[in-house]
Amino acid sequence: MLELLKRDGLARICSLETPGGMLETPCLLPVVNPRISTVSPRELYEDFGFKALITNSYIIRNNRELKEKALSSGVHELLDFPGIIMTDSGTFQSYVHGEVDVGNREIVEFQRDIGSDIGTVLDIFTEPSWGRERTSEAVEVTVERTREAVDLKGRMMLGGVVQGSLFEDLREDCARRLSKLNVDIHPIGGVVPLMETYRFADLVDVIVASKKGLIPSRPVHLFGAGHPMIFALAVLLGCDMFDSASYAKYARDGRFMFVEGTMHLEDMKRISCDCPACRGQSMESMSGMNQEERCRLIARHNLHEMKIEIERVKRAIAEGSIWELAEQRCRSHPALLSGLRRLAEHKVFLEKYEPLSRDSPFFYTGKESLDRPSAYRYEKRFFERYKQPQMDILVGFEDGRRPYASTYSSEMRAVSSVSDAHFVVMSPFGPVPIELDEIYPIAQSLFPDIKDADTDLKMRKLMERMSHDQTYGMCVIWEGEETLKTIRSIARGTSKFDIDMSRIRAVADYQFGEGASSILFDGEVKLVKSKTTLRIRNVLVDGAHVLSMRADDGFFTLRPEGARRLRNGFTSPKLRVIVNKDSAEFNRQGKNVFCGFVLDCDDEIVPFDEVIVVDESDTIVAIGRAMLTRTEMLAFKKGLAVKVREGVAT
Amino acid sequence: MLELLKRDGLARICSLETPGGMLETPCLLPVVNPRISTVSPRELYEDFGFKALITNSYIIRNNRELKEKALSSGVHELLDFPGIIMTDSGTFQSYVHGEVDVGNREIVEFQRDIGSDIGTVLDIFTEPSWGRERTSEAVEVTVERTREAVDLKGRMMLGGVVQGSLFEDLREDCARRLSKLNVDIHPIGGVVPLMETYRFADLVDVIVASKKGLIPSRPVHLFGAGHPMIFALAVLLGCDMFDSASYAKYARDGRFMFVEGTMHLEDMKRISCDCPACRGQSMESMSGMNQEERCRLIARHNLHEMKIEIERVKRAIAEGSIWELAEQRCRSHPALLSGLRRLAEHKVFLEKYEPLSRDSPFFYTGKESLDRPSAYRYEKRFFERYKQPQMDILVGFEDGRRPYASTYSSEMRAVSSVSDAHFVVMSPFGPVPIELDEIYPIAQSLFPDIKDADTDLKMRKLMERMSHDQTYGMCVIWEGEETLKTIRSIARGTSKFDIDMSRIRAVADYQFGEGASSILFDGEVKLVKSKTTLRIRNVLVDGAHVLSMRADDGFFTLRPEGARRLRNGFTSPKLRVIVNKDSAEFNRQGKNVFCGFVLDCDDEIVPFDEVIVVDESDTIVAIGRAMLTRTEMLAFKKGLAVKVREGVAT
Repeated sequence: MLELLKRDGLARICSLETPGGMLETPCLLPVVNPRISTVSPRELYEDFGFKALITNSYIIRNNRELKEKALSSGVHELLDFPGIIMTDSGTFQSYVHGEVDVGNREIVEFQRDIGSDIGTVLDIFTEPSWGRERTSEAVEVTVERTREAVDLKGRMMLGGVVQGSLFEDLREDCARRLSKLNVDIHPIGGVVPLMETYRFADLVDVIVASKKGLIPSRPVHLFGAGHPMIFALAVLLGCDMFDSASYAKYARDGRFMFVEGTMHLEDMKRISCDCPACRGQSMESMSGMNQEERCRLIARHNLHEMKIEIERVKRAIAEGSIWELAEQRCRSHPALLSGLRRLAEHKVFLEKYEPLSRDSPFFYTGKESLDRPSAYRYEKRFFERYKQPQMDILVGFEDGRRPYASTYSSEMRAVSSVSDAHFVVMSPFGPVPIELDEIYPIAQSLFPDIKDADTDLKMRKLMERMSHDQTYGMCVIWEGEETLKTIRSIARGTSKFDIDMSRIRAVADYQFGEGASSILFDGEVKLVKSKTTLRIRNVLVDGAHVLSMRADDGFFTLRPEGARRLRNGFTSPKLRVIVNKDSAEFNRQGKNVFCGFVLDCDDEIVPFDEVIVVDESDTIVAIGRAMLTRTEMLAFKKGLAVKVREGVAT
Repeated sequence: MLELLKRDGLARICSLETPGGMLETPCLLPVVNPRISTVSPRELYEDFGFKALITNSYIIRNNRELKEKALSSGVHELLDFPGIIMTDSGTFQSYVHGEVDVGNREIVEFQRDIGSDIGTVLDIFTEPSWGRERTSEAVEVTVERTREAVDLKGRMMLGGVVQGSLFEDLREDCARRLSKLNVDIHPIGGVVPLMETYRFADLVDVIVASKKGLIPSRPVHLFGAGHPMIFALAVLLGCDMFDSASYAKYARDGRFMFVEGTMHLEDMKRISCDCPACRGQSMESMSGMNQEERCRLIARHNLHEMKIEIERVKRAIAEGSIWELAEQRCRSHPALLSGLRRLAEHKVFLEKYEPLSRDSPFFYTGKESLDRPSAYRYEKRFFERYKQPQMDILVGFEDGRRPYASTYSSEMRAVSSVSDAHFVVMSPFGPVPIELDEIYPIAQSLFPDIKDADTDLKMRKLMERMSHDQTYGMCVIWEGEETLKTIRSIARGTSKFDIDMSRIRAVADYQFGEGASSILFDGEVKLVKSKTTLRIRNVLVDGAHVLSMRADDGFFTLRPEGARRLRNGFTSPKLRVIVNKDSAEFNRQGKNVFCGFVLDCDDEIVPFDEVIVVDESDTIVAIGRAMLTRTEMLAFKKGLAVKVREGVAT
């Protein structure tokens, strides 16, 4: 069973319960060849700390000695590995050799009988060159074999492999059908040829299509992805497990894996690595080694590099910076950059899992950053949810010398407070009216001073869209300091624009949806501001505390009175998480909502959204922060669904 | 004395001879506070392998006990450090505290007397906020004090600090004047405030201005640059030495340095580092430590991270991939990306040091790659040196689906061989006629399939420039496969275009300058081709072997007959390296040309250019490959100037 512990969009840290113990994901399972091991399983476990490995049941079965030992003593003893063992079925061999002399039933039973913790169906490897019909037939067979395997698995966990070649609809369909079967993990198969030929953009499409169809409560294993430079991107897309035979394969060819790319020992002029394998080594010492010693050293280096990259990726998830890390890593090869750029086509899907805000700032690393789901979210919500106050409008393009959205506030204020006009700055995120300038990612973003054509293009395109979408009294485009002075000189007297009221209205609509501001602020509104920063802290309506405003991301925290207003104003299930009776009881006392107790919820909830926890009769039992989306809350059997801030008594 | 061992543009690996021993650069000198040391000098030397450190002579001098010990036993014994000790003069203290109670003469003598290996002048710290006049005066004083110090230095090496605030002309002038004095290394000073406020674009300007004025045979030290994320960029610009007090300062604040950026322990959710300091540590174990233990651990982590980054940078220099590394590293912070983008303004200067080709391929990492000097070189030489054959011309834009320059060859050939037309593809480097499609970086480059607006813009701009610059019989613009078919259908019969003759003419002009092809190929030309690849191997004119074509970068290797033709056709010093009598003797026997024996040479020679080695009477003594530019050959006293391939007897 899988439990989600931390997340950043689709990227997640989970704990997976297996027959062989707990496994924290994302993780790498080194591939161990049962006949020859470059690094022994015991060493992998003890020295490297790999808690799981993957080996090939087909190879074991085809060697009489190995087979007998595995059947009599179990695969753990055979390999001398005290951790979790996953086995592959022979599918890859059938891809390489054209066929295998074993049936699905037989190899699944064999995996179960040798005590594999996670076994794999004998699926059909759908190659990238295959046509639609052949692929479709292979998917049918794969699903059928998975169905067959489910009944045979016993206490072994079963991997149901998603196939479908490059046909996104077939991948998604396959994933959806497998999700309905009683399998435990989902490898994405048939992708090795894509990785071998550096077709990372296609790989991105395949992963996304698979993720769309898969139930989120099962781990996703990217079969054969064993290069550290790809981990961040794959994890960003929701992959949880990787396996690597390449650490040894590369080592035999003399190739070092680095997150910056692969280097052949022959082309290397120096050893620049400080990992436990390389430390103290030099080109001289390495050329003095025999082939086997050198191979062993490089294999250990490769394992270290991957292990530490998995750790870095996990840290990035926990800290909310997986996008920054993935964007950095994808510069290690132009083909990987293609993969990163392909993400732009999937932003609608990615946005569903995009958190409301992050602890980490938005760091721009290149034009690809503009296609992040956080940027898309802002653009979308601005055009859908933001209502222009009925005033003249001034639009300011930031010029080259002045940084973007993050630092313009004081100037914007200066202008808007002395004029009748309303002020909007064109930032790389799109038009930012002064009322929205404190929300994530606007205020928490950093861009380079020197712009690029893509940023410029995006700004102008959104500017155009704004002027087509809406009507204004007057539109002045501000480009640089000179015009700013002109604007100031035409400004007449004090402003009619109430920035504070506009801010709470705009943020409420942006965060909770159109109409939220009318529902929340119907009555006499009073604002409590911080004495030091002068920023809004609490919003009281008719004397009751409805909302607090968070300093770190500019969004609201719900208070019970605010929740009541929204519940009354919006029909169910909007903004709600509906829990069963057993849970309601606890939640009223301020205890968290856990998966397994959620009956339903608003499909538009995104991670870290403020939500209203209600019982089946739509009575409020608590307020809190959602950790998961609707699909996730309903799929997971374990783990936190809503972090409750306050229980609400009846 | 400095010797250049390996280079990639301005980035270089050198060995520096100091009174305390040899030092390989680029290197980092940890700053050791003589009063408190977080990590002991002995540990720095023995455990970390730092061969040099920097300490502050002003602090030693102002503490009676330290002063007496330093004067009686020397600074090496005082710190218990067997390596090279560089000392700072108190300039930074005068910046921080407003003034210091010591004079230049006194502190220089003091540094000499305590046995410092490299001492520093008491220069004036020119702050970024200073006006022109104040800065100019400070530069005068700095130069004057350096002049004074030269006479006092004894056997100590002397650091003459380049000042000039943000005024590029003052920086360059200061550098030029200091270069004439008998000093040994050149720190760039006054830059700490730029780095503290993340003004990396300004830092780039300052470094470039200083490098323009400095004599290349002395190491350049970037004062106070002690964050690993900046090393690759600074080395790319020709900085050789760094110092870091920040490893300890950051550690005291709980900050970990990573090449991916700085992280405060408080914000970190995990330890994801495998360095000897962090290995086996967890957030729990670290919070269980007392402040001092934790500080010591982080300081050691920071030192490891910097040490290993210096090693990576060195490897990148040796392998010819410093641009790729720097571009990756500059994604760790948007301000650093500004620094990277600023390089575009310095490409004319950078191109002078840009090698003819590299062993590593050109990997595009983002739009900044288009401003690399290698791309600028191609654009420049194409427009200056390439002559259009008198034929109709077809221009093909690569469409989105098709990769750029690296893979179009077969299609280009197909078209050009069946038509009367000449074929040019618009690549991100500019127009690439089929004759130039094998040279570096065209054939050795990789771009992502999915383009960006800047690449597109550049391609269209250069296309326009081409159609303005030159006249053609006919111009067809090819955009994608459909049009390709049309072109094929209108092609009539066999081609009049001799691709092989065009190639050798175009490459000769591109490599050796306009007119080279007429000089070289005047006579009956015969080509020897590889039987397997069908590529041109040797060019014979009137029976004599004049040139060979290299498979790896598509350029020519000179043969003695080719050298003779070029010597006769071009007036001195074009393509020549002129050596003195002593050297000529040796070079005729096939021995290399060393610095110190070069009288003069062609100013247009770039690293790895084919050159003609001649004596004072312009008699050819050898042919070979230049390792250095003219300025470098004349400045260095030691090291390889031309790698001779063949001596030429009289």
